[in-house]
Amino acid sequence: MEKPQASHPKSPNELTAVVITVSDSAARGARTDESGPRVAGILEEKGFTVISRSTVRDDVSDIEQALRTAAPSARLVVTTGGTGLGPRDVTPEATRAACDRLVDGLAERIRAAGSAQTPFAVLSRGVCGTLGSTLIVNLPGSPRGAGESLATIVDVLPHALDLLAGKTQHKETTA
Amino acid sequence: MEKPQASHPKSPNELTAVVITVSDSAARGARTDESGPRVAGILEEKGFTVISRSTVRDDVSDIEQALRTAAPSARLVVTTGGTGLGPRDVTPEATRAACDRLVDGLAERIRAAGSAQTPFAVLSRGVCGTLGSTLIVNLPGSPRGAGESLATIVDVLPHALDLLAGKTQHKETTA
Amino acid sequence: MEKPQASHPKSPNELTAVVITVSDSAARGARTDESGPRVAGILEEKGFTVISRSTVRDDVSDIEQALRTAAPSARLVVTTGGTGLGPRDVTPEATRAACDRLVDGLAERIRAAGSAQTPFAVLSRGVCGTLGSTLIVNLPGSPRGAGESLATIVDVLPHALDLLAGKTQHKETTA
Repeated sequence: MEKPQASHPKSPNELTAVVITVSDSAARGARTDESGPRVAGILEEKGFTVISRSTVRDDVSDIEQALRTAAPSARLVVTTGGTGLGPRDVTPEATRAACDRLVDGLAERIRAAGSAQTPFAVLSRGVCGTLGSTLIVNLPGSPRGAGESLATIVDVLPHALDLLAGKTQHKETTA
Repeated sequence: MEKPQASHPKSPNELTAVVITVSDSAARGARTDESGPRVAGILEEKGFTVISRSTVRDDVSDIEQALRTAAPSARLVVTTGGTGLGPRDVTPEATRAACDRLVDGLAERIRAAGSAQTPFAVLSRGVCGTLGSTLIVNLPGSPRGAGESLATIVDVLPHALDLLAGKTQHKETTA
Repeated sequence: MEKPQASHPKSPNELTAVVITVSDSAARGARTDESGPRVAGILEEKGFTVISRSTVRDDVSDIEQALRTAAPSARLVVTTGGTGLGPRDVTPEATRAACDRLVDGLAERIRAAGSAQTPFAVLSRGVCGTLGSTLIVNLPGSPRGAGESLATIVDVLPHALDLLAGKTQHKETTA
């Protein structure tokens, strides 16, 4: 049980990702989703293979279900949208419900870096956590906010995914 | 359901606030409450109308009840006191119990700014969150700590309350 | 009830601590534990009496039980290990289960300071909290990470323990 393998049969060594846009208006087709493509573009520049993108409305059950469906197929699931204070913003609640462990430091880092850009970054409620051997990351919904937030943490993600998959010989010396 | 109105019939467009001092000794009249008036003063300088101030003892049920009673009457509820490590300090626990969503970034910001003043700021356990369309903010109990903490975040509060009331045309581009 | 005494009959005024190393390999004797002794050494330099050190495997129930057993005997319980993203890293989950109150600011401070050393500090999921009148602190598992993290917060711990024991005349002016 010490070094279980990642449960992603199709890509044990590949950096696979799913991008989920959380937005009522994008989900019903009333708005073009710019944030999802931008997030996917950054991930691919960094060596990830984005195996799917999807859109879900701002509903806590729908979001949780989308996360649970995506996790077994990819090592990383990134959401954009639904992290603010709007009455329909419930992505963090859905993410907490889906995750078995939280990674508070990633969310803290996103907000601390964002605060250098705008004082309103403190209002972003995104959380990060793990579901099985998949990492889930919430990003803000604006294209710029999503891009800047992802850029802040993207370089630690490959190492995070290695740790999560039990793929380090020095696990116990790094955390 | 996309843009629900705030549930504060008397003041849909006004910046209304309630200030609650959490303190055993202030609640029984054994100590003059300096922090509540200071918090109220700062809010009024920033354009808020403080519709009431009250005092409650350091009891988790009493505090939660005070928050639930105050929320429908104001867009912002600010507490001062009970956020430390003392055996009776349970304001954060009562606030978590009352809130339906947490806004971790506001509490992180208060502590990060406080750490520039004193290393003991890390011991302040205050949380922030939403209850319906009302924002709840925990501040420390000392007049100086409460004032400095509020000053750190007060300028983002009007925008936060607009988002919370669904009053932005650009909700999806900011979070 | 305003100023209850600490429940540590043998050492009401002494800075007592227990150090727990969380590691499968150290628990079964396959690896020499360097982090536990390093943590204990730092605490003793700062005036703490380390009344015991122990090792527990990366099992959430075992860790929670170890925390509950240790708390009544010391004012401070420090763990090292099990805070990362490895499949067996569950020290934060056990700590949350054991604690009756969280002290988020200490964990935030450890990560913020660690981020100046390595970008991977954001992946440390350690939490801090209180169990009765005992403070529990999670540190990373590497000797260096544990030592640096503890050094970041060790100077506020005596004051934290005084507050926790109700031993300050000015409790209400500091938090």
